Amino acid sequence: MNIEQNQIEKHNDSSLTSHQRKLNFLKEDWSHVDLESVIQKLVDFQIAIPSWALGTGGTRFGRFAITGGEPRTIEEKIEDVGLLHALNGASGAISLHIPWDIPQNAESLKSLASSYGLRFDAMNSNTFQDQAGSAHSYKFGSLQNVNKTIRKQAIEHNIEVIKQGISLGSDALTVWLADGSCFPGQLNFRKAFENTLESLEEIYAALPENWKMFVEYKAFEPNFYSTTVGDWGQSLLYASKLGKKAYTLVDLGHHLPNANIEQIVALLLMEGKLGGFHFNDSKYGDDDLTAGSIKPYQLFLIFNELVEGMDAKGMNHAKDLGWMIDASHNVKDPLEDLLQSVEAIMIAYAQALLVDRKALNAAQDNNDVAKAQEILQHTFRSDLRALVAEARLRAGAALSPIGLYRELDVRKNLVNGRGVNTVATGL
Amino acid sequence: MNIEQNQIEKHNDSSLTSHQRKLNFLKEDWSHVDLESVIQKLVDFQIAIPSWALGTGGTRFGRFAITGGEPRTIEEKIEDVGLLHALNGASGAISLHIPWDIPQNAESLKSLASSYGLRFDAMNSNTFQDQAGSAHSYKFGSLQNVNKTIRKQAIEHNIEVIKQGISLGSDALTVWLADGSCFPGQLNFRKAFENTLESLEEIYAALPENWKMFVEYKAFEPNFYSTTVGDWGQSLLYASKLGKKAYTLVDLGHHLPNANIEQIVALLLMEGKLGGFHFNDSKYGDDDLTAGSIKPYQLFLIFNELVEGMDAKGMNHAKDLGWMIDASHNVKDPLEDLLQSVEAIMIAYAQALLVDRKALNAAQDNNDVAKAQEILQHTFRSDLRALVAEARLRAGAALSPIGLYRELDVRKNLVNGRGVNTVATGL
Amino acid sequence: MNIEQNQIEKHNDSSLTSHQRKLNFLKEDWSHVDLESVIQKLVDFQIAIPSWALGTGGTRFGRFAITGGEPRTIEEKIEDVGLLHALNGASGAISLHIPWDIPQNAESLKSLASSYGLRFDAMNSNTFQDQAGSAHSYKFGSLQNVNKTIRKQAIEHNIEVIKQGISLGSDALTVWLADGSCFPGQLNFRKAFENTLESLEEIYAALPENWKMFVEYKAFEPNFYSTTVGDWGQSLLYASKLGKKAYTLVDLGHHLPNANIEQIVALLLMEGKLGGFHFNDSKYGDDDLTAGSIKPYQLFLIFNELVEGMDAKGMNHAKDLGWMIDASHNVKDPLEDLLQSVEAIMIAYAQALLVDRKALNAAQDNNDVAKAQEILQHTFRSDLRALVAEARLRAGAALSPIGLYRELDVRKNLVNGRGVNTVATGL
Amino acid sequence: MNIEQNQIEKHNDSSLTSHQRKLNFLKEDWSHVDLESVIQKLVDFQIAIPSWALGTGGTRFGRFAITGGEPRTIEEKIEDVGLLHALNGASGAISLHIPWDIPQNAESLKSLASSYGLRFDAMNSNTFQDQAGSAHSYKFGSLQNVNKTIRKQAIEHNIEVIKQGISLGSDALTVWLADGSCFPGQLNFRKAFENTLESLEEIYAALPENWKMFVEYKAFEPNFYSTTVGDWGQSLLYASKLGKKAYTLVDLGHHLPNANIEQIVALLLMEGKLGGFHFNDSKYGDDDLTAGSIKPYQLFLIFNELVEGMDAKGMNHAKDLGWMIDASHNVKDPLEDLLQSVEAIMIAYAQALLVDRKALNAAQDNNDVAKAQEILQHTFRSDLRALVAEARLRAGAALSPIGLYRELDVRKNLVNGRGVNTVATGL
Repeated sequence: MNIEQNQIEKHNDSSLTSHQRKLNFLKEDWSHVDLESVIQKLVDFQIAIPSWALGTGGTRFGRFAITGGEPRTIEEKIEDVGLLHALNGASGAISLHIPWDIPQNAESLKSLASSYGLRFDAMNSNTFQDQAGSAHSYKFGSLQNVNKTIRKQAIEHNIEVIKQGISLGSDALTVWLADGSCFPGQLNFRKAFENTLESLEEIYAALPENWKMFVEYKAFEPNFYSTTVGDWGQSLLYASKLGKKAYTLVDLGHHLPNANIEQIVALLLMEGKLGGFHFNDSKYGDDDLTAGSIKPYQLFLIFNELVEGMDAKGMNHAKDLGWMIDASHNVKDPLEDLLQSVEAIMIAYAQALLVDRKALNAAQDNNDVAKAQEILQHTFRSDLRALVAEARLRAGAALSPIGLYRELDVRKNLVNGRGVNTVATGL
Repeated sequence: MNIEQNQIEKHNDSSLTSHQRKLNFLKEDWSHVDLESVIQKLVDFQIAIPSWALGTGGTRFGRFAITGGEPRTIEEKIEDVGLLHALNGASGAISLHIPWDIPQNAESLKSLASSYGLRFDAMNSNTFQDQAGSAHSYKFGSLQNVNKTIRKQAIEHNIEVIKQGISLGSDALTVWLADGSCFPGQLNFRKAFENTLESLEEIYAALPENWKMFVEYKAFEPNFYSTTVGDWGQSLLYASKLGKKAYTLVDLGHHLPNANIEQIVALLLMEGKLGGFHFNDSKYGDDDLTAGSIKPYQLFLIFNELVEGMDAKGMNHAKDLGWMIDASHNVKDPLEDLLQSVEAIMIAYAQALLVDRKALNAAQDNNDVAKAQEILQHTFRSDLRALVAEARLRAGAALSPIGLYRELDVRKNLVNGRGVNTVATGL
Repeated sequence: MNIEQNQIEKHNDSSLTSHQRKLNFLKEDWSHVDLESVIQKLVDFQIAIPSWALGTGGTRFGRFAITGGEPRTIEEKIEDVGLLHALNGASGAISLHIPWDIPQNAESLKSLASSYGLRFDAMNSNTFQDQAGSAHSYKFGSLQNVNKTIRKQAIEHNIEVIKQGISLGSDALTVWLADGSCFPGQLNFRKAFENTLESLEEIYAALPENWKMFVEYKAFEPNFYSTTVGDWGQSLLYASKLGKKAYTLVDLGHHLPNANIEQIVALLLMEGKLGGFHFNDSKYGDDDLTAGSIKPYQLFLIFNELVEGMDAKGMNHAKDLGWMIDASHNVKDPLEDLLQSVEAIMIAYAQALLVDRKALNAAQDNNDVAKAQEILQHTFRSDLRALVAEARLRAGAALSPIGLYRELDVRKNLVNGRGVNTVATGL
Repeated sequence: MNIEQNQIEKHNDSSLTSHQRKLNFLKEDWSHVDLESVIQKLVDFQIAIPSWALGTGGTRFGRFAITGGEPRTIEEKIEDVGLLHALNGASGAISLHIPWDIPQNAESLKSLASSYGLRFDAMNSNTFQDQAGSAHSYKFGSLQNVNKTIRKQAIEHNIEVIKQGISLGSDALTVWLADGSCFPGQLNFRKAFENTLESLEEIYAALPENWKMFVEYKAFEPNFYSTTVGDWGQSLLYASKLGKKAYTLVDLGHHLPNANIEQIVALLLMEGKLGGFHFNDSKYGDDDLTAGSIKPYQLFLIFNELVEGMDAKGMNHAKDLGWMIDASHNVKDPLEDLLQSVEAIMIAYAQALLVDRKALNAAQDNNDVAKAQEILQHTFRSDLRALVAEARLRAGAALSPIGLYRELDVRKNLVNGRGVNTVATGL
């Protein structure tokens, strides 16, 4: 199913007056600010959609009745991201996962993606599951494994992923390792680190010059005693030892309770080692809920550090970090969930862009803590949704992506086209 | 595979001298205590094995290479528990789960179980997964569901489980609900509670006079925003409203971080509403690790409250509460993991039995906090493993269950008999 | 220092046009809603200020340089709350703490408070500290103490607090107990509960017919192993056993990590046992930060349950629960911090009032989770600050309380009047 | 008060037979191990006592009735540590804190300490409190402060502490900073890091060649939003940038919930950047409870990594890391609490020394997770208290330190000598 430009225009026309009214109100409120440049940044900002997030997710207790119409092939996954991008103008990239998605014909995929305005974002390897036909199991780890042959298998898989990424025009590899241990004594932590580092070095050596490697960390799950890339400190150690193409990747759900993620982000940017982001939200652990659904203020505070820190380094917001959603959709239509996530991220970004930095710096320099809070909360409390909508309008997308999605009965169309029992690969 | 009595005797003979030496040392140390009665209590204490713990577990990221030789039928599950019980003399019950185990012929199962010295412990219903052929999905809850038809389906399933339990000679139903919500707004908490209560009342009405209903609580997972029986306070509310046959069931892994579980146990016993226990261990959440593998001191403190509280109420340790393991075996041989769990539980129980209660009461009455700690740590630091081994010896089981398991190469025998690719039902 | 009505009017006049513009914008947006009744509810809603929050707080590591001009007497504390109430029209009550505030002349205090439009909210007893001249120490607990004489001292103190409250026109007693233990073995949990219950019963017996007793719970601190009123389940047990005048009081910072407080609120309302609230915010524990400064969305979700649950029971929002701030001001001017807290609470209340309940119920009945989230986030994302400001305007208070506070240089005036080295009693 | 050698001998004689019996039993059990070398390591191992732990501690809610007889001067503090060391032979160092302890006459203090067999361990600076007469307040941080003058004051204080340490023969400076923020927006995280680093560099420059600087981290408290040296990753960043004399110091209570501290220890040792340890125990946060009182197994696991990691680097257990207790004694006699802490640490160390490393390595190399657990738990379950007692006996200390402490009524003697109302400086 494709969404036609005239369908979008019709939808937009029906709420244009209301939108303009809200936008004009904002323009008056923020007349001291260059809103045009803010809107342009919002237009430029793109969040990659992971291919595995297009289907219904599950937990270890099972996966419930699927949504129906889930994509059955890479092509259909690209089509789904194309739908999202048509609706919100902000999902212009897809992140593939090997071996859930194995490209057969790179050129035809590139051309298909291009037809939707999509590029291929970071490639994701998978050594946290065994694949049918694999010679060796990752039950006791992959890059950390005490068995060199198993490490080798995992290294080669990653190198294969890089190759496939090259053929698709991707320029980054995300390495998320489930490696770790479930019980005290299972692992020698030092040797596990050293094995992992050695393995990463071999993969790193296979990276093209213009590629980045993202070393993702996670506090726990699926291992429940230790994780071998367990926190930002460990990830930074690996990335520093690996070299300038290696960076830390932050997934919002991969921390111990109460971690101050925004501070981690600021310090990684300071070190020039923040590589990218996996957005989602959570209350307990790696819950993989819709971005902004539980702690929208935290999401804003993180973007506040991102904007401040990237600007301090002269970085390009849209291009110099990898932005991706990583969520699991257990009780919502995956496409609606993704639309909500992107919307929440764009709002947080807009809020961060409008923070009065000069005033904030002054408040900080005066230790005027109450004032600093007033400044941050003022932009957070402001209703900036019309700015994000305006960016969509300019990008040729829908004023209300989820509204149009429902108006056009997209899910029903997908079910009609693909069937009710399709199950996308993923968690 | 059966373990023959002479195999056990041979094993025991080989380490009897060493065992006697250790036991005699303990007898001298604890000459002021009636050790015989302690040993008898250890002999009497039995921990039920859940049928689903006999196979390799997994996480939402997948299940790794199985152990091989996993039980394919209820009969083989009973055989496995029979093996455990032959080895440790303390696993004399099996807890079935419907529909993972559907008894076809109750009489023959009872007779099979009986031949291993096993009885049927609490029955477990399952409304946290959809079953093939079910009319309705539990995606949005079962007993809490806004849809009365779906609640009805879940109620009837529970009543069916009771019926099957009756036919097997069980006398308790454990209700663990995954019901809850993933996002703010998804549920009306009050209505969810009221629906759940009403549903439980219908199930309660179907309980035979001598049965108990265990209402299990859990803080989070698989729902990641709210759970409708989320903590001991909620479980106690349900159990109190239901009536005298309803009790709270405590699973060690089902709490928020840092919860004082031993205090919860003490208060539930005070209220006459503690019904049973699911043993396991965890560091982060419901990690379902081997009992005693992470926090053995906490396990002892819980048993310390159990013994104190049951004695204060004149309860029978072995009979008046339901004792069960509930764990997932992702990286160990499930049978070895269960042997380790039972061992850790028995040690904690032995330690609790030997606490000098008179001295502890006196220390408490004098607010002598340092002394109270000395008293508790003295029994915890004492090596009481020989007492537990002696209880096994008297029960005709092995001095070293895991030792004999490996000597007899039990797993290899099971693989030979059942094949390498068998997968037991479960998580 | 008093704030004159003409000072407020002058301040309001200067931003009236801007305010009207925003209010009119909101009125258009919410034309389908009876905004007048919402504004009236906001006018009626009053949040009590605890006397101890008027001074600079500290931690166990010390208290830093004070703000200056802190109130030295009850009269000056009343004056400070009067200032807040003049500024925001929403702080029309003061909550006293005995023995930090011992009224010498109740009639004159009542008349003073009345001159500021204030009433006396719940009285707070203190058995978590020893007082100079006390016969017995609460080192090992007060109402739980193994020593009946010490329990008696604590009971009598509470009864004395009730008497003082009667003389001031208060009608509630808040009992927060630090009682608990620091080490395993220190306490017999059951006896501690029973002693505490017996003590509370004696205090309860001294309550006038129209009074309420609030039983506050707290997970940890200052005891670091167990707390004798440790969670809502325990508080509810006490309150249920005590009788219809006893209620649970929820302090937002008194929970284990990740607790779902909004669900607790909903269930306590369902049981008719929610008595009141202590507002603050926190990231790690009982951090006592400004309300809404860390998790404003959670604050909204709590109010969402409060409004839904109170409406379901036909309760009066302003009168049927006790609303109070309980925070500690370590790095902000206490009065500014309180103004920020009240503002955040009023905004959350306004958001909750505007939730489209009919649509939310429909979404819940259809398990339309994405829609339910849209509904909640729509009011949360809406900028309702002008509604709260309008309520203030109608109450004769300031459009921008913290703005006027700074314009009038209130702190400087207080320092001039009271001196720079005054230290208010409190934490 | 001094404990005479003949008092110790008399005490030891009375339980010597019992001790020998236990020791002999152990010798038989561990006949395959060089127990003599283990005992010698236990004799050599010394844990420093911080001067502030000798008095009754408190919380932000107050400090309860003191124990009486608390040390009033540095000399009396040295005397108290001398008492501990006489009793347990394992507390041969004292760690001073400036300005709670300001040495007036270094030579006489050294000679006094020496007479008790004590040396001066790491010096502790204090920029987390304001001192009477200080020109500037640390309310908004010390080494991180936006104000250079305040940073300078804090730097000079640290340099002064180094000087005092030199005069006493210390060779390390522990820098624990409370620096951080309570609210979003208060701090620019990057600038706070940079200011702190610059300040540390100035202090580092003042370190003698043979000195170490320990950079201690802490997740939260007394700041409740961010901490500027907040976790091991941040501490390692500072230490790496500072140079080879700078190390990370681990305090067991300074982590987020569920952190795997033993892994952190292993990685810091791998990096050659672990400098020292602050022992205590906790359930919720920085509870500062007696070491081993809550999670004794975790303490063992940490020592297991320490022994393995130090041996891998050829380090001297007793000399190459700084070992110190850092606890607060709210409900126990401080000296008894310290005796219990040292005992728990020594037991954990003994357990770690006896781990069968060869077998553990083999189990790890075979991914035999159950076996690895058996190996670790075997030494943990073994009762090694007699080994620790034997080390004491050989050091001329008491078989039962806390037993002799009570036999000699040490506290009563201290009260008689110093009075009942003495309050030691500290928290």
